Amino acid sequence: MLATLLYGDHDIRLEEVPVPVLSTGKDAIVRVVAACVCGSDLWGYRGIVPTRSPRRIGHEFVGIVESVGPEVEKIKPGDFVIAPFYDCDMTCVNCLNGVSPSCLHGGAWGADDRDGVFADGGQGEYVRVPHADGSLVATPGQPAPELVPGLLSLADVMGTGHHAAVSAGVTEGSTVVVVGDGAVGLCAVLAAKRLGASRIVAMSRHADRQALALEFGATDIVEERGAEGIARIKEMFDGIGADCVLECVGTQESMDQAIKSTRPGGTIGYVGVPNGGSELPIRELFFSNRGVNGGIAPVRNYIEELLPEVLSGEIDPGRVFDLELPLAEVADAYLAMDERRAIKVLLRP
Amino acid sequence: MLATLLYGDHDIRLEEVPVPVLSTGKDAIVRVVAACVCGSDLWGYRGIVPTRSPRRIGHEFVGIVESVGPEVEKIKPGDFVIAPFYDCDMTCVNCLNGVSPSCLHGGAWGADDRDGVFADGGQGEYVRVPHADGSLVATPGQPAPELVPGLLSLADVMGTGHHAAVSAGVTEGSTVVVVGDGAVGLCAVLAAKRLGASRIVAMSRHADRQALALEFGATDIVEERGAEGIARIKEMFDGIGADCVLECVGTQESMDQAIKSTRPGGTIGYVGVPNGGSELPIRELFFSNRGVNGGIAPVRNYIEELLPEVLSGEIDPGRVFDLELPLAEVADAYLAMDERRAIKVLLRP
Repeated sequence: MLATLLYGDHDIRLEEVPVPVLSTGKDAIVRVVAACVCGSDLWGYRGIVPTRSPRRIGHEFVGIVESVGPEVEKIKPGDFVIAPFYDCDMTCVNCLNGVSPSCLHGGAWGADDRDGVFADGGQGEYVRVPHADGSLVATPGQPAPELVPGLLSLADVMGTGHHAAVSAGVTEGSTVVVVGDGAVGLCAVLAAKRLGASRIVAMSRHADRQALALEFGATDIVEERGAEGIARIKEMFDGIGADCVLECVGTQESMDQAIKSTRPGGTIGYVGVPNGGSELPIRELFFSNRGVNGGIAPVRNYIEELLPEVLSGEIDPGRVFDLELPLAEVADAYLAMDERRAIKVLLRP
Repeated sequence: MLATLLYGDHDIRLEEVPVPVLSTGKDAIVRVVAACVCGSDLWGYRGIVPTRSPRRIGHEFVGIVESVGPEVEKIKPGDFVIAPFYDCDMTCVNCLNGVSPSCLHGGAWGADDRDGVFADGGQGEYVRVPHADGSLVATPGQPAPELVPGLLSLADVMGTGHHAAVSAGVTEGSTVVVVGDGAVGLCAVLAAKRLGASRIVAMSRHADRQALALEFGATDIVEERGAEGIARIKEMFDGIGADCVLECVGTQESMDQAIKSTRPGGTIGYVGVPNGGSELPIRELFFSNRGVNGGIAPVRNYIEELLPEVLSGEIDPGRVFDLELPLAEVADAYLAMDERRAIKVLLRP
């Protein structure tokens, strides 16, 4: 089968790899219907995180179950399934605590899981899912084609935006600032709106992203960054900042922006993978009682809550996909995101 | 009048200073009935925070109102009052948001407030309170003498321990670890018990503090520290750690202990002033979804909630005072705390 491998700095290739086979009893083989490229994939693609040896890549996919191991009880061949961006069993103590990325047995796509068994990357034709009953969520029946992007967003970006909002404590009437206008930042706007925020500022300099942020529920756009951006935000909120700030980038600059845009006693919900060496200034946080919550989003734990609204069309997070390419053009997909020509690229094997 | 001044490393003196006078219209003069020495006073006393020039010290006191300015409406001469460890107006946006240490007009005792007017230190005979109606809470009538230590604890340590527990999200059934067995740590045990924690581990190596922790509601004592302490805590809680860890010290060691004792998805509630150069390891927090909330405690916002239980005897946080000295012996009070001969020293002018 064909699967995507990252070789190094701006070197991404589609190659022939072995078709996965069932091996543990609890696994499933899924034929990928749609996958996509994540902002975090770009860390490796840009060489910021070095690639030691070529590795399978892609961690967001939806598909049709081809076969399941003998111990799989809930998932059946033919099911249309959403996979979160990691494999998890949903029975260990961490999964039950709502923190499935810390599953004691699961792991990442494109790597060996914590039990030592390989799971394929998502940007390929097939994926072996080690803990099928835990990781996979089947839709009721086959979804209409136009729902596929929205369902795919539940694999990562929508659940991650939701996690930023939940971690920041967004609730009815909250004032919210979203730092980052990538797919996650835009989904964070949608999540904040859904949770009842009274005012949502999207920090964005790109007209297309601003437009989508406004559609998703943003009430204000701020283009300024750094000290100017902070001054604008403070001015908008009683001179002190917003209740909840959603950090959706992961650099030192974005974290600083987020912290300084938060009012005393407010909370930063952060979901940007801290690959940019960002640090948390403990004394600044301490003396202003700003809290910092979040991390790698437990999107699997959120799927049941968000899925009905995607199926009903109440929310349409699939709008973040503004480019669709066949898997054969995966290299172009990376380039389009690297050059910011696309917010997020959907791939069809 | 007599007041305490910090001169530098282990140099604390009681000196004659001017008696404070009303000056702003909104202020009150309070005759101090009881004050005390705080663990954070020791940072300066031990020379860890250098003293540039002699300064007034002490930020916890209760007393009787002597006189009030013409704009004071709630507080009356003769009232027995509790002052939080900072001055605040309780009318600005931060105070109304529950974050009174960030009051836009108040400030610290023993220094000029944000409006540029001096407030006396608490370890003296009289204190001018700049925002009397905001800062001071009067008890209903004159309290019985045996209640004074408990009321004094509401000025800082009990409210601060409560803040650690609230910030960590302690609720009915939570599992809790308290790092630090000083007065704040012990009050944090009491606060966690009060909020319904099902299991409370006090990390302590001192027999007298262990005994008080158990009286306050601790269910377990752990004497080990560092890697051994973390292993013990994990072993006690499903191999993953506790839901809520209350950091009540402020050093790098105690913060590390706290973070690594918290389960994935759990929360560190921290109130130890980070004077020891503690840093927050963002990647470790991110990949385990551990949150960090807390800071300088808004004890003024908590007094109304805690006062009735102190007055009724339902909680007795005053037990943390295990030594009482006249103000004249303030130097001995500092030494006793510095040498860990006392948990907390109450001073009577």
